[in-house]
Amino acid sequence: MNDRSHSPGSVRPGGRTARTREAVLSAALDELADNGYAALSVEGVAQRSGVHPATIRRRWRTVEGVMCDALIRTGATELAIPDTGGLQQDLRLFAQAIGGFYTAPRHQAFLQGIVSAASRDPSAGDTLRDTISERLRVASAIIHRAVERGELPPDTDAEEAIAAMSAPFYYRLLVSRRPLDQRLPLISADAVYHAALAGAFSIPGADTGEQGSD
Amino acid sequence: MNDRSHSPGSVRPGGRTARTREAVLSAALDELADNGYAALSVEGVAQRSGVHPATIRRRWRTVEGVMCDALIRTGATELAIPDTGGLQQDLRLFAQAIGGFYTAPRHQAFLQGIVSAASRDPSAGDTLRDTISERLRVASAIIHRAVERGELPPDTDAEEAIAAMSAPFYYRLLVSRRPLDQRLPLISADAVYHAALAGAFSIPGADTGEQGSD
Repeated sequence: MNDRSHSPGSVRPGGRTARTREAVLSAALDELADNGYAALSVEGVAQRSGVHPATIRRRWRTVEGVMCDALIRTGATELAIPDTGGLQQDLRLFAQAIGGFYTAPRHQAFLQGIVSAASRDPSAGDTLRDTISERLRVASAIIHRAVERGELPPDTDAEEAIAAMSAPFYYRLLVSRRPLDQRLPLISADAVYHAALAGAFSIPGADTGEQGSD
Repeated sequence: MNDRSHSPGSVRPGGRTARTREAVLSAALDELADNGYAALSVEGVAQRSGVHPATIRRRWRTVEGVMCDALIRTGATELAIPDTGGLQQDLRLFAQAIGGFYTAPRHQAFLQGIVSAASRDPSAGDTLRDTISERLRVASAIIHRAVERGELPPDTDAEEAIAAMSAPFYYRLLVSRRPLDQRLPLISADAVYHAALAGAFSIPGADTGEQGSD
């Protein structure tokens, strides 16, 4: 529902709009990493990117808007959905991708910025919700495929399972505020794997749950 | 390491300090619920509580300091650690308590405020980390008791298990930004229950893990 058409292959490197977007989003992430969320401003992003502030305001409205777009772009390009043919391995690889992504301090700053923005600006909150919803939908292919292979009960709630696997990373970065480590992806992936096998994500009263595309 | 002595029984209702604390923390939560985090100020809390701004600044320094103290108090008084004699039931009750706590809009606003504050102010971040660390330590009694009863492997990482059970609530409130529902406590508790039984939280190379008291 957002900006879904911007899949990795759809960016035309020669397009002026695409170049502007790239410059602005990179500058915003650099500003965040260098100065933190509290200091982020349209003017700072404009100065660093060389794009006029009015252009930024016209297209993204606020720095929160810029961050939402950056979130959409990084989500689309950096977190591939594994398809190894086995659920446990798919979950482990996906968890490692999440852990690897958020190990970068600039991505941690970015996450903290976007969550703070969402708490202060309802439209940033809506964009974050839509972006995450779309990511959960895409990543639930991992669960749908496992159901189709007969590894999981057909009434497994795929999005709840993916949410449960992702949640510990966000909890650690935003709430318990301890550094990520190499155990967390393994723990999170295996916990959800065993929980899903045991039916903990079954939808009450569901017949077959949702199906992936044929 | 924080304010740990403020267990529910230790508040002296007749004490002036205790009354001031109560007035300031309640006023801060009311301000948050009415006006949101962006508008929260020492002056606003002072006006609503009837406590002089200088008194608030002397004791809590900033509104972030007030929120951290409020976090400590609500955590200590409102989330009891169940002890039913069975792991699955303990986890379900604890998850229901978390879900019930955060169903209140004022507690949601409070969480968003404290997480935003932590991202902007390192000392608020430290307090949040210490507070959550202490909560995880207290709540891990649920897991330690299950280990002592022989329900779980002795090398179970109690705090990781409790973190995994709590994380989906924070993920939903802060990241995926959808309303809590009655299924989430059950899903989260049962997922961690089955994962723990399967050894997903085992500490690699651990002999026996940590022990509860005596």
